[in-house]
Amino acid sequence: MGAESVWSVDPRTGEPRGDRRVAEASGPVAVDAAVRAAHAALPALADRARRAALLRAAAERLHAAAPELVAAADAETALGDVRLTGELARTVFQLRYFADLVDRAAEPGGFLDIRRDSADPGLTPPRPDLYRVKLPLGVVGVFAASNFPFAFSVPGGDTASALAAGCPVVVKAHPDHPETSERMAAALREAAREVGLPEGTIGLVHGFESGPELVRHPLLAGVGFTGSPRGGRALFDLAAARPRPIPFHGELGSLNPVLVTEAALAGAGAGAGTSAAEELAHGLVGSFTLGMGQFCTKPGLVLVPAGAAGDAFEKAVADAAAQARTGVLLDARMREAFLGGFARRAGLADVQTVAPAGPAPTPETPLAVRPGVLSVPAASALRGSHEALLEECFGPATVLVRYADPAEADAVLSRLDGCLTATLHTPAADPDAAALLAVLARFAGRVLFGGWPTGVAVADAMHHGGPYPASTSTATSVGATAVERWLRPVSFQTVPEELLPR
Amino acid sequence: MGAESVWSVDPRTGEPRGDRRVAEASGPVAVDAAVRAAHAALPALADRARRAALLRAAAERLHAAAPELVAAADAETALGDVRLTGELARTVFQLRYFADLVDRAAEPGGFLDIRRDSADPGLTPPRPDLYRVKLPLGVVGVFAASNFPFAFSVPGGDTASALAAGCPVVVKAHPDHPETSERMAAALREAAREVGLPEGTIGLVHGFESGPELVRHPLLAGVGFTGSPRGGRALFDLAAARPRPIPFHGELGSLNPVLVTEAALAGAGAGAGTSAAEELAHGLVGSFTLGMGQFCTKPGLVLVPAGAAGDAFEKAVADAAAQARTGVLLDARMREAFLGGFARRAGLADVQTVAPAGPAPTPETPLAVRPGVLSVPAASALRGSHEALLEECFGPATVLVRYADPAEADAVLSRLDGCLTATLHTPAADPDAAALLAVLARFAGRVLFGGWPTGVAVADAMHHGGPYPASTSTATSVGATAVERWLRPVSFQTVPEELLPR
Repeated sequence: MGAESVWSVDPRTGEPRGDRRVAEASGPVAVDAAVRAAHAALPALADRARRAALLRAAAERLHAAAPELVAAADAETALGDVRLTGELARTVFQLRYFADLVDRAAEPGGFLDIRRDSADPGLTPPRPDLYRVKLPLGVVGVFAASNFPFAFSVPGGDTASALAAGCPVVVKAHPDHPETSERMAAALREAAREVGLPEGTIGLVHGFESGPELVRHPLLAGVGFTGSPRGGRALFDLAAARPRPIPFHGELGSLNPVLVTEAALAGAGAGAGTSAAEELAHGLVGSFTLGMGQFCTKPGLVLVPAGAAGDAFEKAVADAAAQARTGVLLDARMREAFLGGFARRAGLADVQTVAPAGPAPTPETPLAVRPGVLSVPAASALRGSHEALLEECFGPATVLVRYADPAEADAVLSRLDGCLTATLHTPAADPDAAALLAVLARFAGRVLFGGWPTGVAVADAMHHGGPYPASTSTATSVGATAVERWLRPVSFQTVPEELLPR
Repeated sequence: MGAESVWSVDPRTGEPRGDRRVAEASGPVAVDAAVRAAHAALPALADRARRAALLRAAAERLHAAAPELVAAADAETALGDVRLTGELARTVFQLRYFADLVDRAAEPGGFLDIRRDSADPGLTPPRPDLYRVKLPLGVVGVFAASNFPFAFSVPGGDTASALAAGCPVVVKAHPDHPETSERMAAALREAAREVGLPEGTIGLVHGFESGPELVRHPLLAGVGFTGSPRGGRALFDLAAARPRPIPFHGELGSLNPVLVTEAALAGAGAGAGTSAAEELAHGLVGSFTLGMGQFCTKPGLVLVPAGAAGDAFEKAVADAAAQARTGVLLDARMREAFLGGFARRAGLADVQTVAPAGPAPTPETPLAVRPGVLSVPAASALRGSHEALLEECFGPATVLVRYADPAEADAVLSRLDGCLTATLHTPAADPDAAALLAVLARFAGRVLFGGWPTGVAVADAMHHGGPYPASTSTATSVGATAVERWLRPVSFQTVPEELLPR
């Protein structure tokens, strides 16, 4: 039996891109070979200067290959040149950012988190000389996401942070962009060769079955995952069920609620001749339709006051959504899930369609869709039958939940699963603002005061994670502390200075 | 059906202590009540000054109650007044140590790990104003260990670090010291009352069934466990299988190998008229019999060179072990497992009994046992049939594994599961020393150069953990960074200064 072929598919039409058989699905032998090659690269990666050089060389090569990479990614994802050019720049920035963190790893505040204690026999218990440092965990499996073919894929944050930590990676390619994945893996391997590291430092596997195979491999030491709750939970369960369980850092989805107070809707906006409500409505539509709503931080539920001010806001959202661009989703399965999910929610009792999502075919993009907005009274959203409204609908849709009083808004918020973000729109002078932020922080990993959650900065103080299912751990997948996921501390006791690991 | 009674048992005789029915086994209703009371205490614990006050008040009360606590613990564990007095002092120190960490939590290097980024719209992607801080996880379940009735029980490191983080705790009492547990929980609750915190801040449950019940409770946010691989893994699996999985920080056992090189055995010792080999032998016997071998850091396997120098060391170990004190194990089940485990290992082919473990009854302590030592050639220890020799035997026993050359020693080390500690005895001038330390660091969380692994300092640079099964996570259960287990980061984006959480 020959290996299954991996095809590149045009999401605008749903058709395979000519005869482009990109790769073979990786069977157990191929997965084993990739993990073993990565494991063999572990000692070479102990050299921090070389790790930093690898990250910079990778950034250089991806930057140089931008035109081809963006073209390949657009052909496979339909995300468009502008967005993809920006995403690649972000990915290049991220690789350099982690290289800088490697340079500073041993300094105070650096990720080696070095701590020293001198001997003190007078303490209870007595204290010996101790030196604590963090060492790489081992081979990391990275599951690429569909929605960010660069920034959360082969050369994305999981890979960059793992390499920074000194961990070789084996990436499970996302089937929505196999050609882009192959091109990026080739660039990373060339970068490894250039700086004198084994090519096995970066492995790439394809095909559905390669995922579980990778997670079960005895030499795998940790997993980074971005994807759906179902797929992520299945792999999390496999990681936990291993004879020796390994850390599984998965980002499985998020509703990203927004709480808009009555006061936030009052008065004039910042722009000339627009109201605050109109500006918020435009901001919301821009955010939930960004990248065709295929952001893990898409605001999927907006708590809006009942009454006249909220009605005006809802009307403004309807107007803005009517002008939103149509577009193509990442693959036909997602399109179906989106259209079906929207229709199912729209059909629930008391749910009003503010803007109808639906097919919007053109000759070039027969699979295009139109964004949609629903509205429902909070009392109805709280009914067991309406649970779907409190769950993520991946794609360009959001749900306005109209609350009669703060207690009702609170009741909705306390029903939500863990989220990556939660956003509050209220004036800074609102006496309840601090308490509302505390409520949002209970279930979210990033709390915004104003603004919109889409767009995640690569920064020291960023946290991109949150209570389950936003994340399966307390770690972040973006920003400086993402490196911590791939390290484990070791204390060295009464070891002579010259024998301590550098 | 009435609730099952919890009895206090005298380990010296195996008999219940008179009619001392200490408590009732906690059914689902009692566990639920404890977790709910703890959850209700969460907001009050947000006040850091009060948390520090609680830890100090608890230290004060335990210190004041030392005579009664030591007497109760000795009656239930037979660990002896000297050891228990020291352990209680350590526990008191630890509570104050964590109080000091709470005082400094918001400072640079403090456990809130506050990070700030100012807005920079020129970056790709643009960076907003960000403030990252760590918040308490929620209610923590603590599973007390048998072997440290103070330091790893009700008021131990898990409880102290969880309270420091702002997390209320529900402790599952160890059945080997229920009376001591009740006394300590009462002291902690009085301390809570004294500083104006709800008594529900510290819950206590008893009985086998209360453990799984606790781990499955929807309001539980994390678990700290110290105990056996079997029990720990079962609870780990439950934590992972929850609808919303929670972090499970378990310490499940450790072999703690010691590698003695030929050079370490050569020449005179530090003392007058003793050889290096004799001193090492005395050190080893002191370490593996400490607390009747019931330390998670007990050296359970010692790699000793084949040949004359190793023979002399083995002889010295036999002499020292023959003079080691007999004593009582924590309970009759452990005694049986120890004697059975030793006999099973002693009966394997090529295994020599250097010192025979066995019953050593006296009229006052009919259940006392004598420590034991085995010796086996490395080539035999590596056989599949001899796997038990490479696994922990809880109690006062150790195994000398005689290696013919460094490759054989390496083969044994690479067969071992993850360990809390690994110790190297070789001169600092040994040209292979750094490489040997690196080998040990691959599978251990604390690497010692000289000395013995028993005794774990409560210190900033301590790491008490290690690859599975030494720990089920990459975290430590002792030292400053133990607090990190009970916190999760949250980023606040463009939140006005005055609205940020303190």
